[in-house]
Amino acid sequence: MSKRGWTGEATELLRVREGFRIDDVDPGSHPGYDGDKKQGEKDLAVGIEALSELQERLFAESRAGVTTDSVLLVLQAMDSAGKGGIVRHVVGGVDPQGVALAAFKAPTAEELEHDFLWRIEKKLPEPGFIGVFDRSHYEDVLIGRVRELAPADEIERRYDAINEFEAQVAASGTRIIKVMLHISPAEQKERLTERLERPDKYWKFNPGDVDERMLWPQYMQAYQTVFDRTSTEQAPWYVVPADSKWYARLAVQELLLTALEHIDPQWPAADFDVEAEKRRLAAT
Amino acid sequence: MSKRGWTGEATELLRVREGFRIDDVDPGSHPGYDGDKKQGEKDLAVGIEALSELQERLFAESRAGVTTDSVLLVLQAMDSAGKGGIVRHVVGGVDPQGVALAAFKAPTAEELEHDFLWRIEKKLPEPGFIGVFDRSHYEDVLIGRVRELAPADEIERRYDAINEFEAQVAASGTRIIKVMLHISPAEQKERLTERLERPDKYWKFNPGDVDERMLWPQYMQAYQTVFDRTSTEQAPWYVVPADSKWYARLAVQELLLTALEHIDPQWPAADFDVEAEKRRLAAT
Repeated sequence: MSKRGWTGEATELLRVREGFRIDDVDPGSHPGYDGDKKQGEKDLAVGIEALSELQERLFAESRAGVTTDSVLLVLQAMDSAGKGGIVRHVVGGVDPQGVALAAFKAPTAEELEHDFLWRIEKKLPEPGFIGVFDRSHYEDVLIGRVRELAPADEIERRYDAINEFEAQVAASGTRIIKVMLHISPAEQKERLTERLERPDKYWKFNPGDVDERMLWPQYMQAYQTVFDRTSTEQAPWYVVPADSKWYARLAVQELLLTALEHIDPQWPAADFDVEAEKRRLAAT
Repeated sequence: MSKRGWTGEATELLRVREGFRIDDVDPGSHPGYDGDKKQGEKDLAVGIEALSELQERLFAESRAGVTTDSVLLVLQAMDSAGKGGIVRHVVGGVDPQGVALAAFKAPTAEELEHDFLWRIEKKLPEPGFIGVFDRSHYEDVLIGRVRELAPADEIERRYDAINEFEAQVAASGTRIIKVMLHISPAEQKERLTERLERPDKYWKFNPGDVDERMLWPQYMQAYQTVFDRTSTEQAPWYVVPADSKWYARLAVQELLLTALEHIDPQWPAADFDVEAEKRRLAAT
């Protein structure tokens, strides 16, 4: 249980199960981890090496055509909760050749003409890859619900459509890890204020962020419904307390590590005659 | 001239100009850099910070809609010359959110039905991004020429088509940096041998690599023709000696840094009323 400084299993402690209430989660807590920030950063660095090797093995297996496995990390959060930092400091530690990153913004006119899952499906990771969704199809039942961007019955339909879609994706070999980075309104205020105080951060600020902030309770309600309806065996949700950036990064890294350890990718055997190739090469 | 440990300008020393002969380049040399491996690795780490900030500024400008600039790094090389290491250790140092990586393998049936530039155009970097091509349209005049994968007049046509295409891409705001990583046959032999001696490297070995190796002089001739025909003002070639991995990485980093310094991206001004937003946020 004490691997990598954890005192408990992040996959268990953070997982959304029946009866989960977002209101019960303290965004400032560090479930399953007793170390401080300094220790956490040290453990993150150690974890990068492990994640990096596991990812390379998985990639190698896919190149050799011996796996259909991939990993998909779905990141959702209120503004400034640290999605970018996860991409940078957790996923950024592995070889970019094996990472497929997709950021979903407000849908384009073309995208709006299709079902909400149309643009999502096109960005699913290929075998061997770690895919990362920076926002996702869940926007269509989060801002979609809060801002009433679609009729109520369409929003309602989407939960089941998502479960069906994700079940197919999982069955095709993709391990889906859905993460909500959970910050407190106070922490968000601090981070947004910083963006307004530093000219090198202005570009990260959008007046719309304040508008969405004013709808905090509605968003939490929409997240609660998402958790109630779409945390499934094959595509579970994890709520990661994110007021401490270092903890959130460590926790997401742990979720990725656990998924990859479960896949347990191995260096593929040679699909050629090694000795014959050595001789052929030596003769050149 | 002594910035970042360089004794000369990499962009000048490595650039393919009229009269350039690939045969004159020593793959074991370190043009413009006097430091040793240890110093080189230190300078690489320092450069990552600089590259990282420049990239973030460029990305910020693009998000703010105030730039159409992007950078495109085209990587070509004989097998095992270190393209992957460049992606990992040079490009991998910047925020993955601002990087668009495309690896071009042998064309698919669908791709073969289109002009050879069709699949390339789709992968060009958007404004604000550093795009990286791991192999590229140049394969169509390299292996394409050596293996006679297309009629001679079609191969011939492609050089001009490439120049025209790249001129358009450059005019749209993309700085194109074309790099050939140049290793010696002896160094390649060593690296391929290592892949055959280590089970964790088998997946990187392909018997076809030995076949291509046997055509080394033909490939060098095809590269020479590429340099003669397609090293233009708006899309120059750089030949980077690559027997020392650390030097090649440092040199490519230097080329990227120089390109970004030339763009000189600035943190964009706020396109909203900062004080008004501070008040609005404070009231929440």
